[in-house]
Amino acid sequence: MKVNIGAVNALDPLPTTLVGAKVGGKPNYLAIAWVGIVGRNRISIALNKEHYTNAGIRENKCFSVNIPSESLVEKTDYCGIYSGSEVDKSKVFVSYYGALNDAPMIQECIINMECRLIDTIDTPYHDVFVGEVVATYCDEYVLVDGKIDLSRVKPILYSTSDKGYWTLGERLTSAWDIGKRWGK
Amino acid sequence: MKVNIGAVNALDPLPTTLVGAKVGGKPNYLAIAWVGIVGRNRISIALNKEHYTNAGIRENKCFSVNIPSESLVEKTDYCGIYSGSEVDKSKVFVSYYGALNDAPMIQECIINMECRLIDTIDTPYHDVFVGEVVATYCDEYVLVDGKIDLSRVKPILYSTSDKGYWTLGERLTSAWDIGKRWGK
Repeated sequence: MKVNIGAVNALDPLPTTLVGAKVGGKPNYLAIAWVGIVGRNRISIALNKEHYTNAGIRENKCFSVNIPSESLVEKTDYCGIYSGSEVDKSKVFVSYYGALNDAPMIQECIINMECRLIDTIDTPYHDVFVGEVVATYCDEYVLVDGKIDLSRVKPILYSTSDKGYWTLGERLTSAWDIGKRWGK
Repeated sequence: MKVNIGAVNALDPLPTTLVGAKVGGKPNYLAIAWVGIVGRNRISIALNKEHYTNAGIRENKCFSVNIPSESLVEKTDYCGIYSGSEVDKSKVFVSYYGALNDAPMIQECIINMECRLIDTIDTPYHDVFVGEVVATYCDEYVLVDGKIDLSRVKPILYSTSDKGYWTLGERLTSAWDIGKRWGK
């Protein structure tokens, strides 16, 4: 039986990311899971308007999206709990830079995407920043035949419904394929 | 060692959804995993401009986001492979309607969200529709203390990197909590 549970956002889970930006000249990292893909190489990140990071993204017109692994869950959660306005998060991770000089990236994260800000969507409570991925860096050992093997990344998945972090399970099957069995 | 693998969108995985819309007066379902949360109760879905569904969403100004479970992987993939312009997908699932009369929902999916179209973002290859969730329906047995237990939903996670479907793993820990151990 279906139950109407009200207007609940049940788009779960989404990957937990650490968004990197320079704020006041220093690297800062914010845990964000309200993210999405909005086109080829386009990523959206929804940041509550009260976050410290927003001004840095607006100023520098770039940011990074870093994918923390399960082993970084504590530090990641730390970067979600405490604001850069109250703690200095520039030393939580080792930062490095790529082509965009103002998008700090996290050495300890297996995947880092440098993004150029291409659009900002205003919503009542969130600034939605749309970035175009200009370069992606990853640890060499997660590449299999030149492609990222997600089972080696061990991303932290966030569920809004239970405010919980989840792990990734097994690879079920290939997409764009198994559906053909069902006929046309 | 970090390797630059080019401009790769590695925001993986994202939940595979079935987007429901009336097209030409009939229910149609499209598998879409380029989705995201863009604010409280706001969901974005990025649909390639060539999809059959887009016109229906524009016309009716609403759509549904349905969460298929692992057991529906074949039918879900089918709805991603074949277009409503070539096959009639109105009978693949049992449809029902809620408050919005033109947003068909899937009985077989554990979670159904009815969305009112509130914004459309134009990108070179995709129409990004932003919906506001107006009501969420779910099967009663996935509710624990009134909240959705994701382990009972068994969502299909899609990875763009390997075009693969993945399962959800275990609940790792609670968010907004474990980070406090790391100090302030």
